[in-house]
Amino acid sequence: MEGDLMRRRLAEARVARLATSGPGGRPHVVPVCFVLDGNAVYWAIDHKPKSGRPLRRLENIALNPAVELVVDHYSERWDELWWVRVAGDAELLGPGPEGERALDLLSAKYPQYQERRPGGPVVRVRVRRWAAWNGAGPAA
Amino acid sequence: MEGDLMRRRLAEARVARLATSGPGGRPHVVPVCFVLDGNAVYWAIDHKPKSGRPLRRLENIALNPAVELVVDHYSERWDELWWVRVAGDAELLGPGPEGERALDLLSAKYPQYQERRPGGPVVRVRVRRWAAWNGAGPAA
Repeated sequence: MEGDLMRRRLAEARVARLATSGPGGRPHVVPVCFVLDGNAVYWAIDHKPKSGRPLRRLENIALNPAVELVVDHYSERWDELWWVRVAGDAELLGPGPEGERALDLLSAKYPQYQERRPGGPVVRVRVRRWAAWNGAGPAA
Repeated sequence: MEGDLMRRRLAEARVARLATSGPGGRPHVVPVCFVLDGNAVYWAIDHKPKSGRPLRRLENIALNPAVELVVDHYSERWDELWWVRVAGDAELLGPGPEGERALDLLSAKYPQYQERRPGGPVVRVRVRRWAAWNGAGPAA
């Protein structure tokens, strides 16, 4: 998959699945809404945890910042399948212009966030590696 | 989310995203086709690695059998969002009746596998924990 296409497919996807690792290397995966901006992926916590306990994805990142995110396309025509994956290091942003800018980008991508701007913190993932796969062709 | 609905949503999903952890707790996530049978999820390796190197998901499981799988529904109406997640332990099955039965189930779910039965090994995940979330309601 060409770099431009890989980048566009990630940027345009409405949902990614975020994998983190917890204590003892216990894996965790959750769908997230996100934006791609330059070499960073941002996502926000848009609700308070129901239990009062911190979200596992945040606990995990505090322990181990390594994450992966994948976006994919499913079709019953398996030659149309594809996925794009990024690996990087996640960091919880404190209050400040970078987080505000990320929230602006998230609101531009998701009208739902214009109605209710995320109230929680923003997480930045600095992308270190890209990978992609096409059902129709060789791995990128 | 009720148990029956959670189970049906997992069983019927065409693709799940599988998270594993590698050396140093490095997370890995990849889309997989799968079947749910009783308390087990099965997926198969349906192609040879292009590089000759073992697939990372298999390397990771050999090191650490803990996995999570998530299926989700995305909609622009965020009150329609949902996901279902299972956590468990993965094991690569050797040749034998359990793997053959899993391949039969995979072929029943995916006509694509009837045309080309997976040639690689089958992985069984014994499900230990279920979790689910509905955009419209409280977390299950």
